[in-house]
Amino acid sequence: MNQYDRVYNFSAGPSMLPVPVLERCRDEMLNYNGTGMSVMEMSHRSKPFIAISKRAETLLREVMEIPENYKVLFMQGGASLQFAALPINLRCNGAADYVRSGNFSTIASKEAAKFIKVNIAGSSEATAFDHTPLQEELTLDPQADYVHICMNNTIYGTKFPYIPKTGKVPLVADISSCILSEPIDVSRFGVLYAGVQKNLAPAGMAIVIIRDDLLHEPAAETPLMLNYKLMADKDSMYNTPNCWSIYVTMLVLEYLQSIGGVDEMARRNKKKADLLYGFLDESAFYIAGARPDCRSMMNVIFRTDSPDLDAKFVAGAAERGLLTLKGHRVLGGMRASIYNNMPYEGVELLVDYMRAFEKENG
Amino acid sequence: MNQYDRVYNFSAGPSMLPVPVLERCRDEMLNYNGTGMSVMEMSHRSKPFIAISKRAETLLREVMEIPENYKVLFMQGGASLQFAALPINLRCNGAADYVRSGNFSTIASKEAAKFIKVNIAGSSEATAFDHTPLQEELTLDPQADYVHICMNNTIYGTKFPYIPKTGKVPLVADISSCILSEPIDVSRFGVLYAGVQKNLAPAGMAIVIIRDDLLHEPAAETPLMLNYKLMADKDSMYNTPNCWSIYVTMLVLEYLQSIGGVDEMARRNKKKADLLYGFLDESAFYIAGARPDCRSMMNVIFRTDSPDLDAKFVAGAAERGLLTLKGHRVLGGMRASIYNNMPYEGVELLVDYMRAFEKENG
Repeated sequence: MNQYDRVYNFSAGPSMLPVPVLERCRDEMLNYNGTGMSVMEMSHRSKPFIAISKRAETLLREVMEIPENYKVLFMQGGASLQFAALPINLRCNGAADYVRSGNFSTIASKEAAKFIKVNIAGSSEATAFDHTPLQEELTLDPQADYVHICMNNTIYGTKFPYIPKTGKVPLVADISSCILSEPIDVSRFGVLYAGVQKNLAPAGMAIVIIRDDLLHEPAAETPLMLNYKLMADKDSMYNTPNCWSIYVTMLVLEYLQSIGGVDEMARRNKKKADLLYGFLDESAFYIAGARPDCRSMMNVIFRTDSPDLDAKFVAGAAERGLLTLKGHRVLGGMRASIYNNMPYEGVELLVDYMRAFEKENG
Repeated sequence: MNQYDRVYNFSAGPSMLPVPVLERCRDEMLNYNGTGMSVMEMSHRSKPFIAISKRAETLLREVMEIPENYKVLFMQGGASLQFAALPINLRCNGAADYVRSGNFSTIASKEAAKFIKVNIAGSSEATAFDHTPLQEELTLDPQADYVHICMNNTIYGTKFPYIPKTGKVPLVADISSCILSEPIDVSRFGVLYAGVQKNLAPAGMAIVIIRDDLLHEPAAETPLMLNYKLMADKDSMYNTPNCWSIYVTMLVLEYLQSIGGVDEMARRNKKKADLLYGFLDESAFYIAGARPDCRSMMNVIFRTDSPDLDAKFVAGAAERGLLTLKGHRVLGGMRASIYNNMPYEGVELLVDYMRAFEKENG
């Protein structure tokens, strides 16, 4: 790390990338793999770029063990564009179940309501989204076109500790802030989608993993760029895709595979989260945000009992190279996003600082 | 160039970037400006990134002399998403005039027809898009919500040699393949928009320059990511934008300003185009594609009288480091895209090769 005077960036996203990946971006910047050009300059229809895109998809299929009957789409617009694309592409009966577990799941449900009837099948809003609704808290409609959840809730620091059972209704999950953080059984889902800017690549792209029986021609007035069927038929190259983000996705997946894949990543993530939550649970000074049974391994919410102390904590952390720890404005306090590419050392330094800060101010 | 064994890439887009820009991308990759992180890793809400985004906008306003009553939006999805966003955001009376001058203007008109009534106000399809319709060829509706043109037609190598007069109806122009190539009077337009991957930055973003009286709340069912008003109100950061592309936009604009701005760029582009068209006009071996009064300075279309010779030409060029000269499949032949960042030397080498090829095969 310190070779480049780098900081530990706890941003909720965009977020840290592995140093070896950044080194490759740097080293290949003027001339990628003997092509005589940067990846940024390549025609998306050229052989070298198509090879990059195919390799990114192949690697994703390998590390996530994506079954063959699923398509992988690289789409522009981030997860927010998918909030509209999902109801537009998946509507049949014209109604869907949405589970509200935080900010983005609520936005997703409101966006979907522009296009289909939305049933709020469960919500933890009454307890300030301190947990993800449990299976027994869900009221599911067996005629729904799909059930939508947001798997990991970045702002509230929660994650579904289980995969909801939805019978024959396809389950759709936004996994933007937990993709590749631990193994996930793709076959349990109709659609998985994720903005890439947390665990994978620079912002400006979403990955959509969709079971192929759900791909059908959407309504005639669907914008071209929101049409899953078209994107699947065109291998995500209906128009020029976000080539740079696809390239970095490939590099990050190569790196992930080189360290042992998602199993090893999950082990590392658990070790980081255990260290931080373990410290929080022992401390009488800090208050952890999320209900313990739904804690996210990616976003750890905590605060002191004083907004002034919280501000002092965040400022002091920045002086030590521990950046972007301020909590989201709706919660205040602190948020440590410890995504895949946050090294263990970063969390160790954070806990050391938390301990020292508590001693000084407790 | 040769310091890095780089080629001359004549791709229609994505396309070449200035070497000094690539060097900065390389040098700042692990640690941007003392922040301790890559631009790819920065929160889009962080001070360093907001400074980058603001500077990109300020530079664009300076070099294009954008009047104050225009908003600049950085949107995801490329120009293709704008084909839908334009009618959705600009519809009032519910009809618009579209001029068909090639492939993308035709797609834009078909996409718009999903949302409003589209009048084809002019078309050069009958002559295989060999020119852009002249003012006297246009039949404009004074009640139209807007008139849409594609200023430079990448596939057919044409460019409007004039700005259509549309009375009080706002003129909307896709300038994806000619933005910043020469001065343009922004005040003549209601909206200018461009995918960035030809003259500016890596793919995955479109710039929208819109007169502020045209910004109003679109229909309730408009997807969030297509809402100009929302994007303007949020300084293009409703969600996480394509930060990397915004950063490279800033670097390219800094470079452009350092060499003398758009005036100097236009002089260089004219010199390159004059060299190539001058040679084509003198040659009895090559056939130039576009009508001379509508020739594009960016995309030069030509062929021999034999598809086999064309293929041989393209293969031989690649051996000399002159890449991606194959014409679009609808036209065949060759296309040399000589965008802003193609050096004069690249065109010189191309003409040298064309001369030698003619001698050998003519």
